[in-house]
Amino acid sequence: MKIESLRIRKEMKVFDLVEAFTLSAFNARRLGDSAKLWKRMIEDDAFIFFTFAGAMIPAGMREIISGTIELGFAHSIVTTGANIVHEICESLGYSHEIGSEKANDPELAERDLNRIYDVFIPTSAFFAVEEFLSKVFGEISGNLSSYEILWEIGSKLENSFLRVAFEKRVPVFCPTFHDSIAGLHLMLYGKKVVLDYKKDIKKILELCSQNRKMGIIIVGGGVPKNFALQSMLLSKGFDYAIQITTDSPHFGGLSGATLEEAKSWCKIKKDAKVVTIYCDATITLPILFAYLVDSI
Amino acid sequence: MKIESLRIRKEMKVFDLVEAFTLSAFNARRLGDSAKLWKRMIEDDAFIFFTFAGAMIPAGMREIISGTIELGFAHSIVTTGANIVHEICESLGYSHEIGSEKANDPELAERDLNRIYDVFIPTSAFFAVEEFLSKVFGEISGNLSSYEILWEIGSKLENSFLRVAFEKRVPVFCPTFHDSIAGLHLMLYGKKVVLDYKKDIKKILELCSQNRKMGIIIVGGGVPKNFALQSMLLSKGFDYAIQITTDSPHFGGLSGATLEEAKSWCKIKKDAKVVTIYCDATITLPILFAYLVDSI
Amino acid sequence: MKIESLRIRKEMKVFDLVEAFTLSAFNARRLGDSAKLWKRMIEDDAFIFFTFAGAMIPAGMREIISGTIELGFAHSIVTTGANIVHEICESLGYSHEIGSEKANDPELAERDLNRIYDVFIPTSAFFAVEEFLSKVFGEISGNLSSYEILWEIGSKLENSFLRVAFEKRVPVFCPTFHDSIAGLHLMLYGKKVVLDYKKDIKKILELCSQNRKMGIIIVGGGVPKNFALQSMLLSKGFDYAIQITTDSPHFGGLSGATLEEAKSWCKIKKDAKVVTIYCDATITLPILFAYLVDSI
Amino acid sequence: MKIESLRIRKEMKVFDLVEAFTLSAFNARRLGDSAKLWKRMIEDDAFIFFTFAGAMIPAGMREIISGTIELGFAHSIVTTGANIVHEICESLGYSHEIGSEKANDPELAERDLNRIYDVFIPTSAFFAVEEFLSKVFGEISGNLSSYEILWEIGSKLENSFLRVAFEKRVPVFCPTFHDSIAGLHLMLYGKKVVLDYKKDIKKILELCSQNRKMGIIIVGGGVPKNFALQSMLLSKGFDYAIQITTDSPHFGGLSGATLEEAKSWCKIKKDAKVVTIYCDATITLPILFAYLVDSI
Repeated sequence: MKIESLRIRKEMKVFDLVEAFTLSAFNARRLGDSAKLWKRMIEDDAFIFFTFAGAMIPAGMREIISGTIELGFAHSIVTTGANIVHEICESLGYSHEIGSEKANDPELAERDLNRIYDVFIPTSAFFAVEEFLSKVFGEISGNLSSYEILWEIGSKLENSFLRVAFEKRVPVFCPTFHDSIAGLHLMLYGKKVVLDYKKDIKKILELCSQNRKMGIIIVGGGVPKNFALQSMLLSKGFDYAIQITTDSPHFGGLSGATLEEAKSWCKIKKDAKVVTIYCDATITLPILFAYLVDSI
Repeated sequence: MKIESLRIRKEMKVFDLVEAFTLSAFNARRLGDSAKLWKRMIEDDAFIFFTFAGAMIPAGMREIISGTIELGFAHSIVTTGANIVHEICESLGYSHEIGSEKANDPELAERDLNRIYDVFIPTSAFFAVEEFLSKVFGEISGNLSSYEILWEIGSKLENSFLRVAFEKRVPVFCPTFHDSIAGLHLMLYGKKVVLDYKKDIKKILELCSQNRKMGIIIVGGGVPKNFALQSMLLSKGFDYAIQITTDSPHFGGLSGATLEEAKSWCKIKKDAKVVTIYCDATITLPILFAYLVDSI
Repeated sequence: MKIESLRIRKEMKVFDLVEAFTLSAFNARRLGDSAKLWKRMIEDDAFIFFTFAGAMIPAGMREIISGTIELGFAHSIVTTGANIVHEICESLGYSHEIGSEKANDPELAERDLNRIYDVFIPTSAFFAVEEFLSKVFGEISGNLSSYEILWEIGSKLENSFLRVAFEKRVPVFCPTFHDSIAGLHLMLYGKKVVLDYKKDIKKILELCSQNRKMGIIIVGGGVPKNFALQSMLLSKGFDYAIQITTDSPHFGGLSGATLEEAKSWCKIKKDAKVVTIYCDATITLPILFAYLVDSI
Repeated sequence: MKIESLRIRKEMKVFDLVEAFTLSAFNARRLGDSAKLWKRMIEDDAFIFFTFAGAMIPAGMREIISGTIELGFAHSIVTTGANIVHEICESLGYSHEIGSEKANDPELAERDLNRIYDVFIPTSAFFAVEEFLSKVFGEISGNLSSYEILWEIGSKLENSFLRVAFEKRVPVFCPTFHDSIAGLHLMLYGKKVVLDYKKDIKKILELCSQNRKMGIIIVGGGVPKNFALQSMLLSKGFDYAIQITTDSPHFGGLSGATLEEAKSWCKIKKDAKVVTIYCDATITLPILFAYLVDSI
């Protein structure tokens, strides 16, 4: 099949650009192929995990995450403690600010601004999170999974992907909840709560053993990637997988590992269709989402 | 200023997505900022260099290059010998094919297919280039710059950015023309031609010394980046610069060097506005182009 | 100060090469500077955290980790569940094998070989781990931190960095213990055990609040990096920090974040000396270790 | 074959570390394998090309380049104009300085310091180069290849790899000579000289067609990589190849292209032994060189 030179038209839609990408090369083609594969997962009525690591919430991806849940583009989420904390900041009305990676960090520290590359967030936002979580954690008790705690949190928030997940009973797993400011607060204020990851594992193993096509979208490696892939060890393996990463295979770490490698572990089926995009997810995730929105 | 969560609408245009990117973070924001900066260069009536290295032509970017010239988004081009050769292939009716980076290379060699990551091109295409160039080179003589040779080639082709450049008298510099299959052909068939880069240098120095705002768009490093930036050493420096790269500053090479570094060399003005996008250009260049098409 | 051209002598020692690197540039200089900084931490009698993510144990770094503990180059370890599992494999006599990243993964799956880039490990090794852990987990009970569980495991192994850590009472934190095969086994066989990360957090907060110089060596990002850095939020911040990473700052994720960024969060002191090496740790960690061995 | 855990001994030599690396993984193993392969090329009496791009001379690699020629580790060099210019600076007694990538570039510009990542060089060094080259170029005339011009330059310098190359009649190809400050000087002062790359191409084609094993060491991509590999298009292909790069295959550019890809083009033989190291060459090149010094 021929590579077709990209033809850009006036008022071109994201959807049409993505379609054109499938006949180009390198990561543009991978982006196009991923869009079609995600769409196919939905059409095949697959159960889809969506994992994301990296500072996606600070970078402005909140509504894409909540839209992904709301529109049924994914049926379970796995993310990091940091993304949860920053989501709560935003839901409580605190904003991340457009900053610069060239800022003087000791000076930022004196101004109570915390930096995430080119994003700033004032320390006051975390005080608000602490106040909010101290109440939530004070009211709950017992052995709880991360997804149960997150539903509880979501039930208390407006305007958050955690709220949408709560309402739709979509499990949001956070296997690094304890490795975040929220984890420190749980230790301080959740005296009657035991964060019991066994329950998370039990739940995700159940989800993985459904008699249904299984798909996964992996944004950015780390524990979310490993936690979801590993849960397939006791089941049949994923039928489709998409990965967006800025890491490379040749350094040997899990975050950059190819999806093919996961086939040797039987986490992904031998004949599964897989696509990796080597690109910053702040660019590619919105494009994939826009494609799906116009596909349904 | 606040980071605004990206809001994806039905039938969203590329233009609107790019606008939204300017209020996000990381490379999405850099992409948005670049689009606005390129637009401003055009509005300010700047003279704009566009340099590109990497296999952009094989990857399907031909019409974007020719559109860039045609629509006045750039006024001079600097590229590699390889891109010129592959452009001639396409103009002569030979296509690059959708291949796979996992192909068995010795087998491809036996099938006379040459691989560029996930793109294949048959060796027969290069025979056609040889036949074409042997005629062109047989008819010209004297000390010629690369841009003069490329206008000559462009005059003999239909459907090519080289044709458009010829018609609009836009200089296309190719400081690595000799480092390509075309260079081998020049040696074999252009007995009466001397490829005289001094004429290229003289011409680009003239262009750089215009009494006019000067801008540069750099796609992918290498000699094209260096050749254009260095030509400013004897002039005032660029007023604006955009760079799309997948390289990183911390390895010390020129391709990954920041645009700020170029300020220490006075190739870019001290107060120039500069933006670097760390991303595969097959994704970002079409997006920038689509933005400009809707801006004019 | 001048850059000194590297002078390689016959029978040159690693130590002398590293010394020479401090007068070169790019990542060689960073490697040299890191070696001197780690040495200085030891001379200043600092308390040193050593965090490592990525497949360091499969890659043959076991004795460097155990030497680091044994020789007092670090006083607390933070690592991933995967490294723990692979360390147990090795201690039980199962070897990782020299493989190839070009292997056919579905075929490996059929041969019960699991791939980690260019390393293979047979599934049988994990059965041995399961048998071993089922016994260990069957004998313990109560709310236990990851470092207590790892001391317990270490006490049952010969020839392991976990054994050395047990004997020297060096805490090995594993905040992703549950996100590993060992975590699955804990769920299955450790019915009377609650993995209580609150105890890990409490302990590491105590370590961070010592009235003593505090240093950190970060190999490869991820949760280990975040867990250790974040524990300084309630204390004074690290006095020195070294980072070895193959990630880049410009994608906005934590693993690639600069150590300067951590200063804005007050995790590292404003005037702390910090060095990042952008390089595969399989090359640089052994070199740093060899330098230290010859420094004491 | 088993991965052997690295065992670091007191006073360990670089040679022994490299030997140990061959039984490890990831890029440490690649480094070990490369060392053995380069050694084998020498033992097999192969003709070896050594290409280098990137700021190797500013970074302190001068004596490694001259040693490579002197000790017969390579028999022809291909490099960039920039490395030639910086080599002349050093030979004329001007030093590169230990700088910082965090410097303020506009301020550096005002102090007449030019930055190459964390290296500074004063503008005065380039004035000395200009004075030197104006004399050299004033005394020569006719159609000259880059390697002839470089022998001429080498004959006028003490303490330079160009001097060693001149004395040993080792051709140093510089296919981007015109794309450098030296190229500007040639235009200004070498009125009677025509830089004739056809002669370079003719010479390198001859070298490539020797009836002898052919090897290549590629440091850092760019035109030097392409120029040497492409010269094999008309011959049998390389028998062995080593590549040190910080680029990645998945962006589709030549600098990151695998050596396997070059097999599809018949630039490298189908059954050739090839190794790529993904690492900063400032670290790995000295290590390879130290290994060879102890091997002969």
